[in-house]
Amino acid sequence: MTDINSDVRSILIKNVQLNGKETSIYIEGNTITEIGGPKLEADTVISGTGQAAIPALINTHTHAAMTLFRGYADDLELFDWLSKKIWPLEHKLTPDDVYWGTRLACLEMIKTGTTCFNDMYWHMTSAARAVEDSGIRGVISGVVFDNFDPEKGEKEFKRCVNDIKELRDNTGPRVIASFGPHAVYTVSNELLEKLTKHAQEHDMLIHIHLAETEKENLDYIEREGGRPVEKLAELGFFGANVICAHGVWLNEKDIRTLAEFDVKISHNPTSNMKLAIGSAIPYEQLTAAGLTVSLGTDGCASNNNLDMFESMKVATLLQKFHTNQQTVMPAHEVFEMATINGARSLRLDAGEVAEGKLADLLLVDLKHPSMVPNHDLISNLVYSANGSIVRTTICNGKILMLDRKVEGEEEVIEKCQEHAARLVND
Amino acid sequence: MTDINSDVRSILIKNVQLNGKETSIYIEGNTITEIGGPKLEADTVISGTGQAAIPALINTHTHAAMTLFRGYADDLELFDWLSKKIWPLEHKLTPDDVYWGTRLACLEMIKTGTTCFNDMYWHMTSAARAVEDSGIRGVISGVVFDNFDPEKGEKEFKRCVNDIKELRDNTGPRVIASFGPHAVYTVSNELLEKLTKHAQEHDMLIHIHLAETEKENLDYIEREGGRPVEKLAELGFFGANVICAHGVWLNEKDIRTLAEFDVKISHNPTSNMKLAIGSAIPYEQLTAAGLTVSLGTDGCASNNNLDMFESMKVATLLQKFHTNQQTVMPAHEVFEMATINGARSLRLDAGEVAEGKLADLLLVDLKHPSMVPNHDLISNLVYSANGSIVRTTICNGKILMLDRKVEGEEEVIEKCQEHAARLVND
Repeated sequence: MTDINSDVRSILIKNVQLNGKETSIYIEGNTITEIGGPKLEADTVISGTGQAAIPALINTHTHAAMTLFRGYADDLELFDWLSKKIWPLEHKLTPDDVYWGTRLACLEMIKTGTTCFNDMYWHMTSAARAVEDSGIRGVISGVVFDNFDPEKGEKEFKRCVNDIKELRDNTGPRVIASFGPHAVYTVSNELLEKLTKHAQEHDMLIHIHLAETEKENLDYIEREGGRPVEKLAELGFFGANVICAHGVWLNEKDIRTLAEFDVKISHNPTSNMKLAIGSAIPYEQLTAAGLTVSLGTDGCASNNNLDMFESMKVATLLQKFHTNQQTVMPAHEVFEMATINGARSLRLDAGEVAEGKLADLLLVDLKHPSMVPNHDLISNLVYSANGSIVRTTICNGKILMLDRKVEGEEEVIEKCQEHAARLVND
Repeated sequence: MTDINSDVRSILIKNVQLNGKETSIYIEGNTITEIGGPKLEADTVISGTGQAAIPALINTHTHAAMTLFRGYADDLELFDWLSKKIWPLEHKLTPDDVYWGTRLACLEMIKTGTTCFNDMYWHMTSAARAVEDSGIRGVISGVVFDNFDPEKGEKEFKRCVNDIKELRDNTGPRVIASFGPHAVYTVSNELLEKLTKHAQEHDMLIHIHLAETEKENLDYIEREGGRPVEKLAELGFFGANVICAHGVWLNEKDIRTLAEFDVKISHNPTSNMKLAIGSAIPYEQLTAAGLTVSLGTDGCASNNNLDMFESMKVATLLQKFHTNQQTVMPAHEVFEMATINGARSLRLDAGEVAEGKLADLLLVDLKHPSMVPNHDLISNLVYSANGSIVRTTICNGKILMLDRKVEGEEEVIEKCQEHAARLVND
């Protein structure tokens, strides 16, 4: 196994299936430099026999450290769930809890073929450290809420800007800092304007929840006298750097506005169904308008795992069920949502196994029962597989999992068991 | 590993978690004989450290050999899918294809923790042989269609009765023969009456598709002048031995009638969503009426896997989404659907890890990232796990998988690749 900080500079994957043909893949530094080339040696040589190379998956909406709450509170009314279960635990979370919760999330992602995630949670510098130590990529947003209190808004904004600076000073290129204004029902227009300006000046991504429930739209209209999308557009909030999680309760005009600004949508089908939010994303309308729709799992309190293979299947099942069409969101589109559309949303030159792209890729087991027969690889990946078909995970040119083994996984499991027990029992 | 036909008579599982406590499980012959007893030795001793014992899962609606069609035809309109893709392949299926297709299904089930399935497909004697050779349990139904042609009906009925006799003469207690009248749109009332009588005389289960689509109900009403449930009740078709797959398009009166006869419902959430059948089972009404609702995957052409862990999650997600309630079908209920309700539907003394029950059980990995932390085991099993958490699968007191290894799995994979390629390319 490659140490993520080692000097290994090149990897050769031999006899691997890529797009239906056997070939070799050569990785130098953090980049795929040659496919099917003549090279026979490298610092590390991997046999790809019986395996296919596919791009690693990209999860565009998570609250990673909430792995610690997995299974703690299910099957409850939304408000009971939040007020009696989730908020009291979150109140007790320490930076160290967030570090280990995020490590568990990263471990689960590596084992299920995800190498980049777009996160929004407390203690961003602890989450960033966990990403650094795990070897994957993370877009880590500084969460801000002001609950419409200007004084709190000022304080939160400063804290967030400081956290972002600290993060940037202490992490490498796999960690990207962004802004995470929580949602229009927790953040005032004034704070949104201020952070938009800061994000534009520093060319930063913004990650926000939008149009998850009908109620949040109706409450906003009552308070502000217009729909959230309309008002946010007026504020100058939208741009190609904005990723909206959920985007379910959008009307035609909302969709036109979002498309005009090239806003990115992260679809979270499992969470939407588990929390019974009452509708599904208007997928055909969003894509017809040219919007980039990617895929997320949401946090482990509302999913309860981070397996993007499962989310791909749930996404297309939900869309078929919701629209009464067997043909909508075919397998290749949902696979693009989980790969290239995620890369585009997070501004990464990844999401494809091709020369010149970042070396973020997977080797999947073609002899796993769920992958047999292989009439159509993409169909098997979307409709039959789960994360356990991934044998090897490579991120940024480093091997993070080889033949399903991840360095140090036992420690992560043990530490998380301890931290979760303390949270619940204290 | 235990040979499924070997003389090993006893298994001791030590230091295993059961219902939240560490204990031991002693199996003698095909039965769990002692839990937490004093025995320290057995023919085979397994360490259960870091694992929990749970009942093996029971899949109450499959077309097992359709694993050979996995990924062959997705994202198509229902009629195109059947007429252009599925039927032409089925026309070419040989008994040997069905044998190997069913072997692949059994392998996938063993690897994902299912030890019993309720099947409906062509060449029942080949399917039965595959069950015998795999070591799991199967209720194998003789499919009958007459398409309302009395001559064909007579011929099909005779063939089916002969097949059932052949199957019973050649298989042991793990294979149960049943009748599989396909559905009310392919089988005449006359043929249904005839086979009902035969099933009653021989105390046999009956497996039928019912109320999957609205169209089949409307067509039936036009042809017969009444709803399918009403007319089948008049025919004397219903009884506690009848398992209806789907049961989606049922009204209040239908539900009362089905409850009156203790008919069993097999819910197939993934298939229902993928085929966009337009609604979901009326779960609360069915259970309020006292009906036994179990869980199925349906065949691999409409799912496309046989992982019952995934189906448990999809079932509760679908019900929550469809009814707009976060609280409906909580984790423990969906777990019962996949275990004890399946056992009840198929008349097996299984579905629980308890003294006196059939030794059909699993050891699951509590250190798998998706199972950490362990705030609630049942929640993790339903909402976070997939079949890859199963380390060891035991059926009828024999170890079919130990530490994820199944004897002969490579041969099954190879044979199925060959058979699938021949089907598609010939």
